[in-house]
Amino acid sequence: MENKIKNIVVIGGGTGTFTVLSGLKKYPHNLTAIVSMADDGGSTGKLRDELGVLPPGDIRQCLVALSEADLLLRDLFNYRFDGGDLEGHNFGNLFISAFEKITGSFDKAIEEISNVLKIRGRVLPVTLDKVRLRAKLENGTELKGENEINNSWLLSKFGIRKLFLKPEAEAHPKTIRAILEADVIILGPGNLYCSILPNFLVKGIPEAIKKSKAVKIYNCNLMTKHGHTDGFSVKSFSGVIENYLGENILNYIIFNNQKPSDLLLKRYSSEGGVVINNKDLDKRFIGANLIGSELYHQNSADKLKRTLIRHDQDKLAKTIISLL
Amino acid sequence: MENKIKNIVVIGGGTGTFTVLSGLKKYPHNLTAIVSMADDGGSTGKLRDELGVLPPGDIRQCLVALSEADLLLRDLFNYRFDGGDLEGHNFGNLFISAFEKITGSFDKAIEEISNVLKIRGRVLPVTLDKVRLRAKLENGTELKGENEINNSWLLSKFGIRKLFLKPEAEAHPKTIRAILEADVIILGPGNLYCSILPNFLVKGIPEAIKKSKAVKIYNCNLMTKHGHTDGFSVKSFSGVIENYLGENILNYIIFNNQKPSDLLLKRYSSEGGVVINNKDLDKRFIGANLIGSELYHQNSADKLKRTLIRHDQDKLAKTIISLL
Repeated sequence: MENKIKNIVVIGGGTGTFTVLSGLKKYPHNLTAIVSMADDGGSTGKLRDELGVLPPGDIRQCLVALSEADLLLRDLFNYRFDGGDLEGHNFGNLFISAFEKITGSFDKAIEEISNVLKIRGRVLPVTLDKVRLRAKLENGTELKGENEINNSWLLSKFGIRKLFLKPEAEAHPKTIRAILEADVIILGPGNLYCSILPNFLVKGIPEAIKKSKAVKIYNCNLMTKHGHTDGFSVKSFSGVIENYLGENILNYIIFNNQKPSDLLLKRYSSEGGVVINNKDLDKRFIGANLIGSELYHQNSADKLKRTLIRHDQDKLAKTIISLL
Repeated sequence: MENKIKNIVVIGGGTGTFTVLSGLKKYPHNLTAIVSMADDGGSTGKLRDELGVLPPGDIRQCLVALSEADLLLRDLFNYRFDGGDLEGHNFGNLFISAFEKITGSFDKAIEEISNVLKIRGRVLPVTLDKVRLRAKLENGTELKGENEINNSWLLSKFGIRKLFLKPEAEAHPKTIRAILEADVIILGPGNLYCSILPNFLVKGIPEAIKKSKAVKIYNCNLMTKHGHTDGFSVKSFSGVIENYLGENILNYIIFNNQKPSDLLLKRYSSEGGVVINNKDLDKRFIGANLIGSELYHQNSADKLKRTLIRHDQDKLAKTIISLL
């Protein structure tokens, strides 16, 4: 591709998308983040249940990633209250939800907060419908909600018959337009069943991705997730993505080919995940050293389990950019 | 006084100060609000207890009053969560408290939020010490905390032997400087024992007010407060103020000379307050029609009892300005 400003659309939700956006922000391209609306855990889950709002958590992470405001304001958005009624609530989430309540519009809330945070780029919810993620397993069990699915160990054991949203959801029109106008579409990294696939369950999204002429890149996860993707190779991950979007739709699959440090692996072993097998790959698969060198330190007020081994935002962005 | 830009310092806290600031903001003078730090009721009280922060509520009201940001952002700061863990919490309070936690400085938090809200003027806490208001009654009862005092009916019944802060507090140096540099000092309107006098209990404040060459104006309340100021005349109010600051220190006492509408009085009668007697006043006392024509509608999520009969911000500001 020629060396010009490109429209890059990053589809996902959660920490992986934060990492991709944070890295790509340092390049001059136009960034749009499209965010899954299935999250219902932690602070976000409480706000959904108690205030009836759309899930703010992943949107907030993307807004902070793209923010060019003072570090202090970005820190504020990520601040978690530690104590009393507010224990575990994230300030940025409250900001988004309060704005949604006042304006009666999630879209308008994101727009206003984009101004406050001086973001470069755009953040779009994949849908404005209020949905919950469901997983029907092969043994008949039905898991209800993203949080329950995320914490379940049964997905690998029994296999997933069907992942779906309840109720069915229509894509946000702005999101469809962004996908169709994209020069590059980036998927992942991120929790496969809880952050990436829920985007493809929204009516209109897989069709738009298929129709889009963008270069399509999937950033494979660094590690398997015990109970979800045990035994998965890089090909297994990209295969699941292509089951939803169409065979050979991915132009590139970026994967890590560097073993994490023993310290990281030891810390991670309690989670049961392992380094992903990357044997027998064709030329669409791009291996690189992508591992962040710093250990992730979790905030004590944060009640969700977070991945300890993470992509290095700069290494990942550099690898993506090298393909454009 | 000649017709030039003046440094106006408004001392108080609570709704009365919000009204004065909102009205005076329309004139070209430099405004500084000095705010009592004794509040411990409602959302503010919970935040103090659970997060160990300084009281944000009155500071927030003053920031909103002086804000020149979009109406939407000002609405956001006044938004109260309605439901779940967050019930009754005010978003602006959470904003201030989260910023205080991140920066470790209440002063810095106010400064940053002043930028976000694009305020014209300054808002200063009277002290940065963590204080609680106490009232020792003549019968020996000791009331602990602003909220308990505010809700007590015993103050009129037994009389107050001593109103004090625990622990003792030192004035914020910026506040002292603002008072000494003021051309005009405005006190009230507001809850006498809970919003106005607590400012004078901070070491250095009465001395600074006495030393200041500013024109000193007291805006008397519209109504008595049952259990606190039963039977008070305008002279009783200004007399209490001068007990703390010195005899004849007030250059003007502005009072309302218009009877509220029957509708307002009927609504108010349940609170037990009455229109304040304004007989036998010397020329320092300035009577005017100051009553707001709109009934105050309380937010259902707001757990504090609020005054229904309020000053009209424009009438009050106009009367103040006419004296300068």
